[in-house]
Amino acid sequence: MNCRVQGDCLPDKLDITPWDVSEEFKEEDYDRVANEFGAKIIDDALISRIRNITGEVHHYLTHRIFYAQRDLDILLDDYEKGNPFYLYTGRGPSGKMHLGHLLPFLFTKWLQEKFNADLVIQITDDEKYLFRDLELDDVRKYTRENILDILSVGFRPEKTHVLVDSQNAGVLYNNAIKVARHITASSAKAVFGFTDSDSIGKYFFTSIQAVPAFIMSELKGENVRCLIPHAIDQDAHFRLARDVLPKLGYYKPSSIISKFIPSLKGGGKMSSSDQTTGIYLDDDRKTVRKKLMKYAFSGGRTTAEEQRKYGANPDVDFAFNVYRMLESNVNETSRIYEEYKSGKILSGEMKAMAAEKISDFLDEINTRREELKMDYSSFMFDPARFK
Amino acid sequence: MNCRVQGDCLPDKLDITPWDVSEEFKEEDYDRVANEFGAKIIDDALISRIRNITGEVHHYLTHRIFYAQRDLDILLDDYEKGNPFYLYTGRGPSGKMHLGHLLPFLFTKWLQEKFNADLVIQITDDEKYLFRDLELDDVRKYTRENILDILSVGFRPEKTHVLVDSQNAGVLYNNAIKVARHITASSAKAVFGFTDSDSIGKYFFTSIQAVPAFIMSELKGENVRCLIPHAIDQDAHFRLARDVLPKLGYYKPSSIISKFIPSLKGGGKMSSSDQTTGIYLDDDRKTVRKKLMKYAFSGGRTTAEEQRKYGANPDVDFAFNVYRMLESNVNETSRIYEEYKSGKILSGEMKAMAAEKISDFLDEINTRREELKMDYSSFMFDPARFK
Repeated sequence: MNCRVQGDCLPDKLDITPWDVSEEFKEEDYDRVANEFGAKIIDDALISRIRNITGEVHHYLTHRIFYAQRDLDILLDDYEKGNPFYLYTGRGPSGKMHLGHLLPFLFTKWLQEKFNADLVIQITDDEKYLFRDLELDDVRKYTRENILDILSVGFRPEKTHVLVDSQNAGVLYNNAIKVARHITASSAKAVFGFTDSDSIGKYFFTSIQAVPAFIMSELKGENVRCLIPHAIDQDAHFRLARDVLPKLGYYKPSSIISKFIPSLKGGGKMSSSDQTTGIYLDDDRKTVRKKLMKYAFSGGRTTAEEQRKYGANPDVDFAFNVYRMLESNVNETSRIYEEYKSGKILSGEMKAMAAEKISDFLDEINTRREELKMDYSSFMFDPARFK
Repeated sequence: MNCRVQGDCLPDKLDITPWDVSEEFKEEDYDRVANEFGAKIIDDALISRIRNITGEVHHYLTHRIFYAQRDLDILLDDYEKGNPFYLYTGRGPSGKMHLGHLLPFLFTKWLQEKFNADLVIQITDDEKYLFRDLELDDVRKYTRENILDILSVGFRPEKTHVLVDSQNAGVLYNNAIKVARHITASSAKAVFGFTDSDSIGKYFFTSIQAVPAFIMSELKGENVRCLIPHAIDQDAHFRLARDVLPKLGYYKPSSIISKFIPSLKGGGKMSSSDQTTGIYLDDDRKTVRKKLMKYAFSGGRTTAEEQRKYGANPDVDFAFNVYRMLESNVNETSRIYEEYKSGKILSGEMKAMAAEKISDFLDEINTRREELKMDYSSFMFDPARFK
């Protein structure tokens, strides 16, 4: 522990919080961090179990992109006894969405379909106001665009509930105070790295993010298990929620935890602030291709000759990683992996394949998005739908 | 400053917070505390000014029960230029209301009438949940009763807006985050005496209590000054609000600050937790008389003989103090004061006079309360009424 001047005692290393990921964070740190956070790595037995229930396994599991979990086994035990669960995930609307922001929602969509599960999607516009130097109007202008982006992956309207914090502040605050009563400033400091100089809005916010983890139980008047697909950086919120919810008579939420989508430049998260590190959903074919060719971090060699001779490192290659995210056929991905690694596929070829795959995907997304633009009201959170 | 083990630095003495008043707090501490808090004592010139504007002076001002203020002069300057202000006061519904809880509302009613002012009354049910060992259901069962008690003093329905936190959590939370963004944990510790062991709900709460101080400006879309009549123990909330509101483009709220109603046993606030320290609004004549005779702290002498000889100390006498609160004729009160002090009035006589005055007042309150029971919906907060 490291006690600073003001007496705020922090763990030696908080390399991941919901608002900051260390520059030094690397692929090999994922397992360590999951262990430190008390999550379990998803093993082959659990993957087999999911396959037995759903009839298939999503390639994000095979590729260990969703790689850790908490109480997923308990949730599946209950599910197999005939007790449905619901899903909860979310997004803070601080800017235009990148491909990296959208990909985890594909996995959530798969879960929704395979488990016929209700899904609450929280849009934390309050969070972005409290944690970033953005005004409320700035945040809110992204809200509609981001909702359209998220819904464009193709969720089921009758089972999807988009909960915008500012639009549902009443039900959220009234439930958040139940959580907030059980979290000390000390706990918030320990898990988020806050100091006395942070605002009381930041301290309180985690209790707003906890509410969707029990809102279905609250509204239905009976306990329903909740599975939260989330990236590892959001983990602190749900560790706290797991401490508190049983005190309120609810189940601890289960988690299924993903790695980050690497930025074009390699390492860390895809950034929202740097235009060159992400692919926007409205990027056209030409732009996508240009971004990949110009900015994408490559695991290949400098010259075609060297690449033929020594091969690439696909694991750190942006183009390969995005290709893998969008290709559900794992055999096909394995083939590409081997050919790229052996030097049969050149770096430029890999980038071109990825660019095409991305643009095909964006075309599909944008077609659905155009339809949704007309009316997406049936996807919006309405407490009456849970009765 | 006193820095504890955990590094929480507190002022040497916080003898008054919204949730705790030191046992040692005495009448002679009021001026010191007001000065420490940066409020000004209401002087004769200001009282004269109020008389010039309103045509009379409420006896709570004459008796220095409302004894301190902030920016009351600026508010009156603006009022005299034709700019109306509104009033904001409140109550945390943690139990049945005592006479002591109700008396400040009489003064607010007078202000409403004399200045033809809108009045927002905040019912902080969330506060009582966060700060006391009460469940939400416990708190909410007092909400209706307390609203009826407060309204029974006779506010104007068309100018009164009862804002129950849980019922208006949406508008409150959406505005509270604007305040919360500008208050650090450090500031909250300094003014409320919080430590790291306090809940994040407590830390956040002050931003909810700040909202009514600008809600009319927010809803009307133009700045309206706000005058907050409050007891000195609530001062920390409004000091913080005065720091933050100008950053959001609103006026600093003005305050008019009261002393506490002494408990039957003398000193401090009338307590809600001890049945023998307060007079309930539904106490009948017999009970009121019994409580005064049996429990009321007396400034009189032990025997009638000594009282005749040495006289009483009316200033510390509960019966006299309550009598004074309920008697608007200050000449009459002065006469009683002198006669009691000189020994002409005996302690038992003073108690009997006070008991009668209290019961007459409660009769009036309860008659109005019975009428309100039928329907008080026109008094409830509705954002549409501000448009």
